Amino acid sequence: MISNDDGIHAKGLAELVEVASEFGDVLVVAPNTARSGMSKAITVEVPVRIKKIHDGEHLESYSCTGTPVDCIKIALDKLVDRKPDLILSGINHGSNASVSVHYSGTMGAIIEACIHDVPAIGFSLCDYRPDADFSLMKDGMRQIISETLKNSLPTGTCLNVNAPMGTPKGIRVCRQGDGLWVNEFEKRTDPHNHDYYWITGYYQSLDNGSLDTDNHALAEGYISIVPTQIDMTNHQAIETLKKWNFQ
Amino acid sequence: MISNDDGIHAKGLAELVEVASEFGDVLVVAPNTARSGMSKAITVEVPVRIKKIHDGEHLESYSCTGTPVDCIKIALDKLVDRKPDLILSGINHGSNASVSVHYSGTMGAIIEACIHDVPAIGFSLCDYRPDADFSLMKDGMRQIISETLKNSLPTGTCLNVNAPMGTPKGIRVCRQGDGLWVNEFEKRTDPHNHDYYWITGYYQSLDNGSLDTDNHALAEGYISIVPTQIDMTNHQAIETLKKWNFQ
Repeated sequence: MISNDDGIHAKGLAELVEVASEFGDVLVVAPNTARSGMSKAITVEVPVRIKKIHDGEHLESYSCTGTPVDCIKIALDKLVDRKPDLILSGINHGSNASVSVHYSGTMGAIIEACIHDVPAIGFSLCDYRPDADFSLMKDGMRQIISETLKNSLPTGTCLNVNAPMGTPKGIRVCRQGDGLWVNEFEKRTDPHNHDYYWITGYYQSLDNGSLDTDNHALAEGYISIVPTQIDMTNHQAIETLKKWNFQ
Repeated sequence: MISNDDGIHAKGLAELVEVASEFGDVLVVAPNTARSGMSKAITVEVPVRIKKIHDGEHLESYSCTGTPVDCIKIALDKLVDRKPDLILSGINHGSNASVSVHYSGTMGAIIEACIHDVPAIGFSLCDYRPDADFSLMKDGMRQIISETLKNSLPTGTCLNVNAPMGTPKGIRVCRQGDGLWVNEFEKRTDPHNHDYYWITGYYQSLDNGSLDTDNHALAEGYISIVPTQIDMTNHQAIETLKKWNFQ
């Protein structure tokens, strides 16, 4: 099963379907329009609709008016009669490395899949252009899909895979890099003299020279894999906080 | 600084402002309407606007057309000239325990604050009603805020605090419970004979009797604190995946 956050018509989705079809039958359930930066948002205020787009023997596809997470939820609840062998998302047009895992709709879908205990991989290419060239990362994708099907994944863990522009030098298993987006809003004034703000800004790495992060691997020209878990507890901090003074 | 996901007019926000005002000056930046289930979504397709609602000596408040994360980002970028001492979110009308931390806009704001290295606490009450009674959890909130200001928090770590209905028996530091939401969409048919789906369903615990989870603490009548981290890497899995067969 496949979803994404750039929408059902994105080039990256078509390229992911192509690679996935080499491994088995494919069900696509993707947003009907671009839903970038939707994170793990769910649609609660309005209902969601789905529409069959394609009905082939080995490929079925639906568009959905909801978020990437809604796509996974509604597909698992209403469209399949068994758990898929694998859920993929992407290929995202743009990096989802480091802290971007939190805002990413691509990874939102994958974390939702992981919550439902299905092995899941999010793929992103560090190229935001609509006509980005995904061909150079496909060999790496095949290896990662193949090894995931063979070895499965630790419980509660999915994969955040990012590829650099150009021919990757290889594949590296990494930790999530440290960093943040800064200077994020650009102020403009509308014709009626009211201010409005566009989100923008740049990524600031806080890796301080660490060699084991996804951002470092990407900068060096490697595909990065971060094993990403749904348990967000800082387990070490539990003992620290237990010493706090509560009555 | 305070935000939430139930919107600027929610009762829970007013109650949080009341408690926070005991500790210092307060800046509120909250969505202009309910934005439940927005997770860490950011607004990229349309611009965001902010509007000053209140301008007092010790309390200033703004509504924002964006998501909870947008509220934190725009406030830090445009409304303050130094980092706040503490960022709070809530009090959410409804639980954000266990896996709900992923979908929660309340916790989205807090994780964003944490990414910006500001100590941050999300508060939720396990009562979805608009007129929920938040008074019984306030003593616990004061203790948690006070201890956080005194001890600060480990880097990259924020707090997910949930309170049970009724008088809490005390405060427990916990790990994030295991579970998921199941049977999530209810199908209906519109007057034009097209299907649509409302998100719904119930929470299924997978705690298997564990005594150290937030859900268990809440079920026992305690306020739960989960130290929640922005690093989603499964560090143990890195060594496992390094053994996979990549060329």
